[in-house]
Amino acid sequence: MKFPLSKHRSARLALGFDDVSLVPGASTIDPADVDLSCEIAGLKLKIPIIASAMDGVVSPSFAGEIRSLGGLAVLNLEGVFTRYEDPEAVLERIAAAGDDKATRVLQEIYQEPVKPELFARVLKQIKDAGAPAVGSLTPLGAKRYGSAAMDAGLDVLVVQSTVTSVRHRSSSGEVLSIADLTANSSIPVLVGNCVTYEVAYEQMKAGAQGVLVGVGPGEACTTRAVTGVGVPQITATANVAAARADYFEETGRYVPVITDGGMRRGGQIARALAAGADAIMVGSIFAGCPETPAPHYHWGMATPDPNLPRGTRVRVEKSISLKQLLFGPTSVTTGEENLVGCLRSSMGLCGAASIREFHSIDMVFSLSFMTEGKILQRAQHLGMGA
Amino acid sequence: MKFPLSKHRSARLALGFDDVSLVPGASTIDPADVDLSCEIAGLKLKIPIIASAMDGVVSPSFAGEIRSLGGLAVLNLEGVFTRYEDPEAVLERIAAAGDDKATRVLQEIYQEPVKPELFARVLKQIKDAGAPAVGSLTPLGAKRYGSAAMDAGLDVLVVQSTVTSVRHRSSSGEVLSIADLTANSSIPVLVGNCVTYEVAYEQMKAGAQGVLVGVGPGEACTTRAVTGVGVPQITATANVAAARADYFEETGRYVPVITDGGMRRGGQIARALAAGADAIMVGSIFAGCPETPAPHYHWGMATPDPNLPRGTRVRVEKSISLKQLLFGPTSVTTGEENLVGCLRSSMGLCGAASIREFHSIDMVFSLSFMTEGKILQRAQHLGMGA
Amino acid sequence: MKFPLSKHRSARLALGFDDVSLVPGASTIDPADVDLSCEIAGLKLKIPIIASAMDGVVSPSFAGEIRSLGGLAVLNLEGVFTRYEDPEAVLERIAAAGDDKATRVLQEIYQEPVKPELFARVLKQIKDAGAPAVGSLTPLGAKRYGSAAMDAGLDVLVVQSTVTSVRHRSSSGEVLSIADLTANSSIPVLVGNCVTYEVAYEQMKAGAQGVLVGVGPGEACTTRAVTGVGVPQITATANVAAARADYFEETGRYVPVITDGGMRRGGQIARALAAGADAIMVGSIFAGCPETPAPHYHWGMATPDPNLPRGTRVRVEKSISLKQLLFGPTSVTTGEENLVGCLRSSMGLCGAASIREFHSIDMVFSLSFMTEGKILQRAQHLGMGA
Amino acid sequence: MKFPLSKHRSARLALGFDDVSLVPGASTIDPADVDLSCEIAGLKLKIPIIASAMDGVVSPSFAGEIRSLGGLAVLNLEGVFTRYEDPEAVLERIAAAGDDKATRVLQEIYQEPVKPELFARVLKQIKDAGAPAVGSLTPLGAKRYGSAAMDAGLDVLVVQSTVTSVRHRSSSGEVLSIADLTANSSIPVLVGNCVTYEVAYEQMKAGAQGVLVGVGPGEACTTRAVTGVGVPQITATANVAAARADYFEETGRYVPVITDGGMRRGGQIARALAAGADAIMVGSIFAGCPETPAPHYHWGMATPDPNLPRGTRVRVEKSISLKQLLFGPTSVTTGEENLVGCLRSSMGLCGAASIREFHSIDMVFSLSFMTEGKILQRAQHLGMGA
Repeated sequence: MKFPLSKHRSARLALGFDDVSLVPGASTIDPADVDLSCEIAGLKLKIPIIASAMDGVVSPSFAGEIRSLGGLAVLNLEGVFTRYEDPEAVLERIAAAGDDKATRVLQEIYQEPVKPELFARVLKQIKDAGAPAVGSLTPLGAKRYGSAAMDAGLDVLVVQSTVTSVRHRSSSGEVLSIADLTANSSIPVLVGNCVTYEVAYEQMKAGAQGVLVGVGPGEACTTRAVTGVGVPQITATANVAAARADYFEETGRYVPVITDGGMRRGGQIARALAAGADAIMVGSIFAGCPETPAPHYHWGMATPDPNLPRGTRVRVEKSISLKQLLFGPTSVTTGEENLVGCLRSSMGLCGAASIREFHSIDMVFSLSFMTEGKILQRAQHLGMGA
Repeated sequence: MKFPLSKHRSARLALGFDDVSLVPGASTIDPADVDLSCEIAGLKLKIPIIASAMDGVVSPSFAGEIRSLGGLAVLNLEGVFTRYEDPEAVLERIAAAGDDKATRVLQEIYQEPVKPELFARVLKQIKDAGAPAVGSLTPLGAKRYGSAAMDAGLDVLVVQSTVTSVRHRSSSGEVLSIADLTANSSIPVLVGNCVTYEVAYEQMKAGAQGVLVGVGPGEACTTRAVTGVGVPQITATANVAAARADYFEETGRYVPVITDGGMRRGGQIARALAAGADAIMVGSIFAGCPETPAPHYHWGMATPDPNLPRGTRVRVEKSISLKQLLFGPTSVTTGEENLVGCLRSSMGLCGAASIREFHSIDMVFSLSFMTEGKILQRAQHLGMGA
Repeated sequence: MKFPLSKHRSARLALGFDDVSLVPGASTIDPADVDLSCEIAGLKLKIPIIASAMDGVVSPSFAGEIRSLGGLAVLNLEGVFTRYEDPEAVLERIAAAGDDKATRVLQEIYQEPVKPELFARVLKQIKDAGAPAVGSLTPLGAKRYGSAAMDAGLDVLVVQSTVTSVRHRSSSGEVLSIADLTANSSIPVLVGNCVTYEVAYEQMKAGAQGVLVGVGPGEACTTRAVTGVGVPQITATANVAAARADYFEETGRYVPVITDGGMRRGGQIARALAAGADAIMVGSIFAGCPETPAPHYHWGMATPDPNLPRGTRVRVEKSISLKQLLFGPTSVTTGEENLVGCLRSSMGLCGAASIREFHSIDMVFSLSFMTEGKILQRAQHLGMGA
Repeated sequence: MKFPLSKHRSARLALGFDDVSLVPGASTIDPADVDLSCEIAGLKLKIPIIASAMDGVVSPSFAGEIRSLGGLAVLNLEGVFTRYEDPEAVLERIAAAGDDKATRVLQEIYQEPVKPELFARVLKQIKDAGAPAVGSLTPLGAKRYGSAAMDAGLDVLVVQSTVTSVRHRSSSGEVLSIADLTANSSIPVLVGNCVTYEVAYEQMKAGAQGVLVGVGPGEACTTRAVTGVGVPQITATANVAAARADYFEETGRYVPVITDGGMRRGGQIARALAAGADAIMVGSIFAGCPETPAPHYHWGMATPDPNLPRGTRVRVEKSISLKQLLFGPTSVTTGEENLVGCLRSSMGLCGAASIREFHSIDMVFSLSFMTEGKILQRAQHLGMGA
């Protein structure tokens, strides 16, 4: 739906998590019978939940923990674990910084160069913990350290930045081509983030084995305020899923879609999957788990940018084990715990036996959801209440 | 009205209580002359108000009180009155629990099994109080305890869960068929909750003698946050009413529509009826009445779920007799008291002499209502004001 | 624009004061050259502002004051001035009541019967103060006391209630016909309130010499919460103005439209007139003027209803002379003072030399206005800020 | 998109900064390679940022500072610098006034007449500081003092008022014709503010060498509340840009569009430029810079109006050098610092190598942005949080 801005231009409507709601199905299904599995880059996931490459969230041991519970984690290959011999000390320093100094401390810490010679040790730690070695690099990082990471034993590479396009122009000359990367890579490559049909389709054509969706929606992210850029996640996910469907029809290759960022409650995760995602990527909701390397804190990957930080360190008070967060039981009634239970229940109410069936259920768009959700969220943000 | 999400999918707009308003009629009518009666499952109601099967609201004696005032109550046949010999002690324990413990206490209390042998005593208490024995069971409960309840003297059965579909799939095998139930039942069966034309039409075809409308809108309910599922009540009611109209045209059988949940003020009740409901079902607004079994408290039926609670115990400060709540007089100017007076006044302004006439009055959709109502409500919720 | 509710019904979009904004004109005009005059029921107004028949606002002396400044006032002929020999004492009692008792005190005071024998004295007081005797009666009051008021010297009768339709049905038999009233009346009759094209057109056909617009928007009014009935003022005014235009084209008789209720700032008054009103009626904004009979207080006409109060007594802290409120000068920057200056400035920016020219300027509909305005207003209401 | 108000009228939808968001491009570009330059009235700007003619912001020395950083400033030729021999003393008095007195003090100070004999000294001060002498006059001021200002050495004249139309009617006779002014002027003339295609096109035809866009959106401005007039900036900018495109196609002359008012964060500046502006004009965001003549304070040009103030003095707590505000580095994560970095990053993500390329990128319209942004902003305004 196009809304005209002038006789020459228009803006299309885009919807986010709190603008839509799922419609119960004509048939329902027992939540216990719902199949939540998906396959990404050759890896089977029992639950469609991936931990994002945030240094405060994913350490090698965390990757092992979430894998044993059926999910997956991505380690940041340009983070503290590959910049410092002793990442624990660095993480402690971040946690100890005062609120007003936190961004500055992060900026300083991330000026230490990445040390490719640390890759092998870190990747081995992940595998020793029982998980596949999945790591993320920025496009520039992929150009610089991609081969080193593969040589060091990486199983899956995630090329990820705020926006990863197929054609990047730079006078510095140091530009990554996704097509070249996938052609020359011995391991699967996932690419992100994007928010449109066109870019997603091109990434698939360029050989991406998974596409990450989302620009600017994460809780620890302020891309939208800083740059004015962003697309709400439901519309973004649905458009990327449409690209996947068309690409599948033309090539027979099914490229999983992973919605990344902005989800905190079970209902939001359910809506992202119903909009077309095969799995979701979340980071900040794990900050309350003792299994993370920096319990009670998280910060976005763009937060330490020395010139233009686009994120902030966030403190989380609650404490809950990863297992209970994912599977319950819980006495919390907001959908922020037992995320898998929420999802099973949602798919049961909608009559979806699998995530692929979930991709075609009905949604409604409501103006009241939006106001309600946003006011509640903002009010909480501003410390105004429960 | 469809709002596109991608080239393959779209979401239709759905409206809630605070998104719409009623348009005064070309003629008006004296509120005293308005006929508020309706007939549901063979029972005549003088006022179209049904108390929902919440344990904190409906006891046998409350059922008698509201019946004597022209309304109706539904008793929860899987609640404390059929799980415990001494329900009063249990209700006191719930009321005494601290706010942080309330959900946990509820989870524990509702793990006690239902005792069908208590049905007869409870149903007799209702009848002794002067009311028909109307009780609710979940679909699974209806399969397990339906016959026992009928044998024990049940007059009307309400089969009710978050979402009751016509076809439920479960590998456990223990699945209820609404069509079988109504075919084999000696008493009328009401079914809910649903929110779409399609499901409502199928329930009517399956023999339902009344359909309950509403997924996730109740005050003590957090289904939307937990599962992402829900449809705003005005759109849901209008669609179910459309199914009733079409079914009536085809079969000559008029199946009453009951909108359940989310109403607190007279204006919201009026809008639900104008949208197509024959009666409305409310629970939490009775929590201030001394006639309830747990004065000052209410909690949703899904709150005690041991794994995934979808609701919360809510405390209500005010105290008002059931009669005054329904019929006034009042000095409260918010529409939260004298609900029947509000409804008479509303129908008078709209020129509707009966609820069926009310079903065809004009409505407007306004973006300002929404914001106003929601902000007010949220602000109250957050303890920010009056 | 119709928004579907179901396959059988839809709701049309309706806009309020804070949903729209006026577009500056291709030409502009010096505010000093703007002609603000209008003519209503044979009376010339230099400024298009009418004080509404609220007992806390309009006394005989207030009517004189506002008339001398170019406006007009309507006295409530069923209020304290015609129920009590000593209205001042009664008004003092209302002002002295505690906040929690105010509605009850009002309910009690308005149970005293109207005394038609007081009409002559009150109407003479108005005329002695230099104003025409303009008074309001409810439809039932018009039937009972209309002749007495005319005999007592009334110059213009305003028949006003929450909703005044052309056809009212009542089993009590005591029903007013507007057509009969205007046919048999020796003085002009204004009628209100209405919100639709259809009813406005019928009132004009029935002989109304002016039509009042607005159901439920006033600050001291809670009709919308209590009954669910109401239409936002910009849409309501535009529709009634469309009826006036069509009626004028057919008959050559121009029936003034008066938008009543909900305006507090100059910008809102300007929007009401631009939407099609010839004059606006306001009450609560005068509550800070020492010229009113109950300085610092106002309450709606439906507030004292003994069974179903639809309004509340509101306390206003500020103090400002009527003249300064209307004409400035001011140092207040919110548009709440120098209302006439605001209007002159607005018409100047839009290039409208007269109110009739103002009726055809462009408007935009913006979702941001709404949120901004409503949040600000609600936040103020809740005591949250400036 | 037209939304009907009645059968005779409608309102078109208009969008503001927080209603839209920019869509990342199919290609991206290195932020360092983005060209931010533009040319206005023969002056090259390295960064498209112009300081608005607010007395609290632009002094001669400030004009020099911002010019040396690549931007431009406009001095108010009817402000304290041309009314007083000793403007510093006056500015100190404004800063010292209590909050409740500030508007009154401003009203008094601006009653001192403009002294054209001071022009030469002030314009020389600007040039001595290294900047071109760019000054603003109201239309009436341009008629009265235009020649004097040109004689005194003005390089570019900005004719600016709340709304500047091509045809102004006034019985006082003292009316400016833009066409006459540009025809008789030896220097370039920029004209504003306007918000529609029609008026912008006429201003271009009348010889304007630049058009300013914006009525009522500034932070220190309350035009919308006071007069009801205003158009959200994204729609206004897009429409004026459409006029520029059509005028360019017909005449070959490219008239720059400058969006003025309402921007505080990098993301908003990016959206204004993407909507079609060549440069943006901001004032209040400089209030925290020690380079301004009244650090920590700003007030709109219409604030001192003796009868109808449309603005307010605002105090700003933060302190940051102009250079750092524009170019960083920063540890602030809200987009309120390093404005040029924000813009480079935004254009990089959207793949726009120049501002003209930026004019054709995609935007989405989202209801969630609006609510989120407005609530945050209002909450801050009301002192409710961070």
